[in-house]
Amino acid sequence: MEMTVAEIAGLVGAKADGDLSAVVSGVAPISEAGPGHITFLGNRRYERHLATTGATVIIVPEEYAGSPAIAGKTVILAANAPVAFAKVLGLFESSSAPLAVGVHPSAHVADTAVLGEGVAVGPCATVMDGVTIGKDSVIHPGVYIGPDATVGSGTTIYANATVRERVRIGDRVIIHSGAVIGSDGFGFARDGDVNLKIPQIGIVVVEDDVEIGANVAIDRATIGVTMIHRGAKIDNLVQVAHNVTIGEGSMIVAQTGISGSTRVGKGVVLAGQSGIAGHIEIGDGAVIAAQAGVMSSVPAGARMSGYPARKHSVAKRISASLANLPALFARVGAIEKRLEKLDRED
Amino acid sequence: MEMTVAEIAGLVGAKADGDLSAVVSGVAPISEAGPGHITFLGNRRYERHLATTGATVIIVPEEYAGSPAIAGKTVILAANAPVAFAKVLGLFESSSAPLAVGVHPSAHVADTAVLGEGVAVGPCATVMDGVTIGKDSVIHPGVYIGPDATVGSGTTIYANATVRERVRIGDRVIIHSGAVIGSDGFGFARDGDVNLKIPQIGIVVVEDDVEIGANVAIDRATIGVTMIHRGAKIDNLVQVAHNVTIGEGSMIVAQTGISGSTRVGKGVVLAGQSGIAGHIEIGDGAVIAAQAGVMSSVPAGARMSGYPARKHSVAKRISASLANLPALFARVGAIEKRLEKLDRED
Amino acid sequence: MEMTVAEIAGLVGAKADGDLSAVVSGVAPISEAGPGHITFLGNRRYERHLATTGATVIIVPEEYAGSPAIAGKTVILAANAPVAFAKVLGLFESSSAPLAVGVHPSAHVADTAVLGEGVAVGPCATVMDGVTIGKDSVIHPGVYIGPDATVGSGTTIYANATVRERVRIGDRVIIHSGAVIGSDGFGFARDGDVNLKIPQIGIVVVEDDVEIGANVAIDRATIGVTMIHRGAKIDNLVQVAHNVTIGEGSMIVAQTGISGSTRVGKGVVLAGQSGIAGHIEIGDGAVIAAQAGVMSSVPAGARMSGYPARKHSVAKRISASLANLPALFARVGAIEKRLEKLDRED
Repeated sequence: MEMTVAEIAGLVGAKADGDLSAVVSGVAPISEAGPGHITFLGNRRYERHLATTGATVIIVPEEYAGSPAIAGKTVILAANAPVAFAKVLGLFESSSAPLAVGVHPSAHVADTAVLGEGVAVGPCATVMDGVTIGKDSVIHPGVYIGPDATVGSGTTIYANATVRERVRIGDRVIIHSGAVIGSDGFGFARDGDVNLKIPQIGIVVVEDDVEIGANVAIDRATIGVTMIHRGAKIDNLVQVAHNVTIGEGSMIVAQTGISGSTRVGKGVVLAGQSGIAGHIEIGDGAVIAAQAGVMSSVPAGARMSGYPARKHSVAKRISASLANLPALFARVGAIEKRLEKLDRED
Repeated sequence: MEMTVAEIAGLVGAKADGDLSAVVSGVAPISEAGPGHITFLGNRRYERHLATTGATVIIVPEEYAGSPAIAGKTVILAANAPVAFAKVLGLFESSSAPLAVGVHPSAHVADTAVLGEGVAVGPCATVMDGVTIGKDSVIHPGVYIGPDATVGSGTTIYANATVRERVRIGDRVIIHSGAVIGSDGFGFARDGDVNLKIPQIGIVVVEDDVEIGANVAIDRATIGVTMIHRGAKIDNLVQVAHNVTIGEGSMIVAQTGISGSTRVGKGVVLAGQSGIAGHIEIGDGAVIAAQAGVMSSVPAGARMSGYPARKHSVAKRISASLANLPALFARVGAIEKRLEKLDRED
Repeated sequence: MEMTVAEIAGLVGAKADGDLSAVVSGVAPISEAGPGHITFLGNRRYERHLATTGATVIIVPEEYAGSPAIAGKTVILAANAPVAFAKVLGLFESSSAPLAVGVHPSAHVADTAVLGEGVAVGPCATVMDGVTIGKDSVIHPGVYIGPDATVGSGTTIYANATVRERVRIGDRVIIHSGAVIGSDGFGFARDGDVNLKIPQIGIVVVEDDVEIGANVAIDRATIGVTMIHRGAKIDNLVQVAHNVTIGEGSMIVAQTGISGSTRVGKGVVLAGQSGIAGHIEIGDGAVIAAQAGVMSSVPAGARMSGYPARKHSVAKRISASLANLPALFARVGAIEKRLEKLDRED
């Protein structure tokens, strides 16, 4: 793959400045890029690399136009630089062979399963009775799709992922390796000394354009639906309990856990290792900081952090106070001594 | 499946009130139920739905007998409502085809493996040399059972779970997809600059009626046994290190981690994302709150929370104090000023 | 396997004391060992078992020479007792049948894959186009190795692990079941209302002698390399985000999460459930306590704990102060009352 700077700028709809006819043949991080590479200033903390990078061309936010930081450099000035970079990366994606269309002889696809045109089912994958898979979807090796599950079109399920019975997966969904969709919810009824299993007869619905990370676990509902709405993105090792709803476009970062029946709104961010209690609501657009523990419902747009989670502004003040807490004890001790002395003087 | 209210009440051993001949054909959550549905009041916070639910019949705790909240409703009044509901859900469980009894042609079962009557081994599953599987157990597609492992009767191992060599699994155990039982413990001996691997030659024993969630990891003992006692329930993505013991009937909630050689007693609850240090004991019936970090042994019956974990009553007081901590700094500052003024007045 | 105490002492290069001709046929934990067993005092808190263990011989640190604690016992006195024990465990490792060399008929190995001498590929494993596997490596059942990946010599990949396309795995690496190496990094560019996927076109490099635990997730780089350097050891359920570097010999304990582009130095310990923010550096030899949340770079050799993580000595003082915080409020209240009284007296 070789393209000129001008061609790339045209494809991503951005202006370019410098040597427009320079040829690009690959992508590299700004600190490692050399001749022939296109790179990206993704974060202002890496701005120092602008001066020294060997890249042939750098994608920068258009605010850099005229800045001395890019003097003498060939740049693509993009209104939305991350989006421009995402498009460029798409041009240079892996050249590894895609999975061959059709069913590999070592896979098992039940006679009653219905596969759309262009579907690929890899070696040692299993597609059970009553499954429907839409066109151009790719079922990688070792994947399991349980009875009566449905998978939409253009969806990719990576190796060794598991989709249990009756789960419904939308179009253009990406499910990473090791993810488990539709495991039983953790529900037990105390019966004397015994924890009696509550059968989990509901399902999981994963709407279009959702991405689910490696080794994620999403439990099926006790009854009804565990719902992952359109465009939500779930990072690795996240736990989604039974009957949870995750709203449109929300981002759930790695190792977060969401307890049963909680409703996460639209456009919410749950940062890494955060934990959300059961039976609460996280309002639209709320942002929950890393490792926060949210015990009660959170209004739309709120920013929360800490354990138990408080408004971020409050949690920050508490955290700053903590640094001075040992000194505060000393100050109070000194005051007490002063007052004792006063008492003795009385 | 169709049953009358009277028939269902009889099956679960509870009284019914209202239209006993009404016909039930399905189960739904209280907020979504309509005609033909049986539903359940599982949590008083959903009591408002009693007035508006369209369900044909509602299972409620028997304390509701005579309550205006259920006036005009058809109800099943159960001494143990969650248990009654669990039994009803069992009546309406998935109609998806069960895995066929016998060994699927794409599975590999070693010649020296011994399978009981009624065992099902799904497509692309692997059962190695010397394995024994008891009657009516179900080994779903893609499961691996290592050499010399034993699996009891009536046990279900879901797709893509892994049971390593010599691990012993009891009767009526449920292992969810992606769980790994018997991986090596994390043990290294520092030898100069190198972390020398300590071979992990022990096993894992999982007793009867245990349930193990999706993508759980339970390490084999260095020597001896990592032990999961009868009736313990382990949620998704939990880490159980080498030589841990989990007592009878304990509940380990999602994403909890238990470090090496720790003994968790009977009837313990470790709530979600809690972390337990190594070489300690958690006494019978102790309850550890979500995200707590337990650094030292905990007596029987204790309730602990926070990081580092303290008695819950203490942790709660500290947490409440924290909310007022910035104000406390201001108060101490004001006192200091007042005293300076006194000093100047002297 | 039977050996005398003298033979074992010779093999591990240590002195022995007591009945040197006693015969050892197995290994057991100190609290459970009986005749014929060799055992190990691994932790001084188990010293009380020295008096009562039924073991034939105990490995102890050589500082115990002449100690009354071992009077009358047969012991092996080792300069590095954990290393001696690791070697002894190696002598008594599992007798389960190893995976047969060669490709199992139910496995799929692409025609273009190149396998070294002595390689074993188990049932239902998949090795895709362009893969190279070095000699004596063992690919257990259900493993997936993606196109153009390379695996070194003497490496073991346990059942149902996943190695994605173009990932490079070194020699003598151990990858446990359910681990996923090379899943896409969690990268999205906000494009209006949509989270546009940033293609993740980089790779993961796992150097020699690394061990990766069960159900770990290691994401491929956006561009460039996610790097796990030689001898690093990663415990179960750890999250390693895109473009992270983990230095030589570092130990990453279970359920830890490392965010994107962070560089972890050499010989670092990240204890269980710790969380490390993105784009920061953890200096060589730093130790991060369990459940700590590290928000900014940490110098070499630092010990950090708490959330947000502070120097361990500071965090400990804060934590100790917290225990007395409710009492401090009472003390300040009493001071305020005393001052009010003074004011009234004025």
